[in-house]
Amino acid sequence: MISVPPEIADLVGEVPGADIVTWDMQAPAPREDIEVMVVPPWNSPRVRELADHPKLRGVVLSSAGYDHMVRFLPPGVTLSNAVGVHDTATAELALALALAAQRDLPTFVRAQADRTWLPQAVNRSLADARVLLLGYGGVGRTITRRMLACEAPVTAVASRARAGDDLVDVVHGIEELDALLPEADVLVLALPLSDRTRGLLDGRRLGLLPDDALVLNVGRGPLVDTDALVAECSAGRLRAALDVTDPEPLPEDHPLWSLPNVLISPHRGGASTAFPARHAAYVRGLIERYVETGRLDNVVAVGPGEGDGQ
Amino acid sequence: MISVPPEIADLVGEVPGADIVTWDMQAPAPREDIEVMVVPPWNSPRVRELADHPKLRGVVLSSAGYDHMVRFLPPGVTLSNAVGVHDTATAELALALALAAQRDLPTFVRAQADRTWLPQAVNRSLADARVLLLGYGGVGRTITRRMLACEAPVTAVASRARAGDDLVDVVHGIEELDALLPEADVLVLALPLSDRTRGLLDGRRLGLLPDDALVLNVGRGPLVDTDALVAECSAGRLRAALDVTDPEPLPEDHPLWSLPNVLISPHRGGASTAFPARHAAYVRGLIERYVETGRLDNVVAVGPGEGDGQ
Repeated sequence: MISVPPEIADLVGEVPGADIVTWDMQAPAPREDIEVMVVPPWNSPRVRELADHPKLRGVVLSSAGYDHMVRFLPPGVTLSNAVGVHDTATAELALALALAAQRDLPTFVRAQADRTWLPQAVNRSLADARVLLLGYGGVGRTITRRMLACEAPVTAVASRARAGDDLVDVVHGIEELDALLPEADVLVLALPLSDRTRGLLDGRRLGLLPDDALVLNVGRGPLVDTDALVAECSAGRLRAALDVTDPEPLPEDHPLWSLPNVLISPHRGGASTAFPARHAAYVRGLIERYVETGRLDNVVAVGPGEGDGQ
Repeated sequence: MISVPPEIADLVGEVPGADIVTWDMQAPAPREDIEVMVVPPWNSPRVRELADHPKLRGVVLSSAGYDHMVRFLPPGVTLSNAVGVHDTATAELALALALAAQRDLPTFVRAQADRTWLPQAVNRSLADARVLLLGYGGVGRTITRRMLACEAPVTAVASRARAGDDLVDVVHGIEELDALLPEADVLVLALPLSDRTRGLLDGRRLGLLPDDALVLNVGRGPLVDTDALVAECSAGRLRAALDVTDPEPLPEDHPLWSLPNVLISPHRGGASTAFPARHAAYVRGLIERYVETGRLDNVVAVGPGEGDGQ
């Protein structure tokens, strides 16, 4: 039998041939014969107790990232991640932050608190802004589609150069980054954190951006050297819009809070109502194929040692 | 000879066969033989003195609206409006306000002032939100393109029902409005103010919107009954994002300022850096055709009485 979290149980519905129970992974397990466990989106404290489920064959995450779970896998149990289900929500927040920063909405919110109608002025547009996008996976492509609809040309960079697709002519390799930074009005970080990407945007690279460029991070905080970013924004040379920070949460005394040209969103990238519908459709498809084939999609790891796996 | 405002003079550049001077319409006229006068985007106090230009044949506005200028036209002088040049900037602000309101950015800005990292929560998305768009001209279509890229389905309403286009299956007539309001998660007002549209969104129609709907106005303030909107938003039943208000500017003691579910932008719809490039391209094309044909495009009015016009 298969457990799915309550957030999506109704949307997943019945699947012919599958025995589905609803479980939030916080209450005790409803049955002892769970074969496949779909982990809830935000909290799952009992994931560490996977060994308590003797029939367990597979764990299905609701995130693309999975490193944090590998070490809890019992022998032979597979781990599947969720591909694409956060793309819409995360790309949408990236676009929201880009537009808010360009069109000066934080200034309007502050003026509203002062009950002040600001005088006429011309704001930056997103249209015509040259977007340099680091990370061209699902989120990156979904961001690109939105940026292009907003008349903002996109230059995409990924770990390796490759041919383009229906959205971009070419995907540049990361080794071209330094040459591309001086042409970026909006730099979007939408790549995962790894040993290779940690601190990618260091002080030297920030210095290559043109004056008044916007640094938009919807990836992970440590992709950017925060001290260097604070220095550039304090000086008024760069601007930032950050859904992720380093450290996170940002402590009360952190200098980022007080910079008027920095917009901070508290890591809400994937957390929108767009997510459950997409997550449920993904889980339903995965269960349908599991019924049909006895195998889970998107297996990214298997618990160590022997075991039947799948 | 033709005068163009300094904001776009460089972008318009030289046009073969045209004698172009730069004039901001605030300093005295640089020459007495101005035939065509391109009015600057935001301030033009001397437009009332059109009769001082004996050779004047045409006035070209930088706005789509032109009613305010008709009465200043000397006999036979034509008035052209500017079509489409504000679409990108205005649609972009509409999208910015929709995304900011849905994804709760104003709350983040206020939390930033308090140096507070808000706890995990799920925000509304724009994706999947049912957008009801009133006004399907250039701005409306440009908004639609952006909303569709954000995975938000759009129902378009115009003064008369008509066939759809590449973006929408059908354009509904305004007489269908009441039946459509209960299905709107985001109601976008992008239509001009006229005797027929003033107060269009009155208390009764606001009452037809579902709970938690967002009223987004980038048209004109008096399209909406502001008192009724304040009542709905004060009660927490509806939300609003307003680039235009009634009255405007909003006085310091107006109740809209203090509503946390209302986002106010001080009439910045057309005022972005996207505008000059599009305005200049429009003016250049118009001058090129004037050189070729001796006539101005988009004539919307002619001064009263005799005169050679064009």
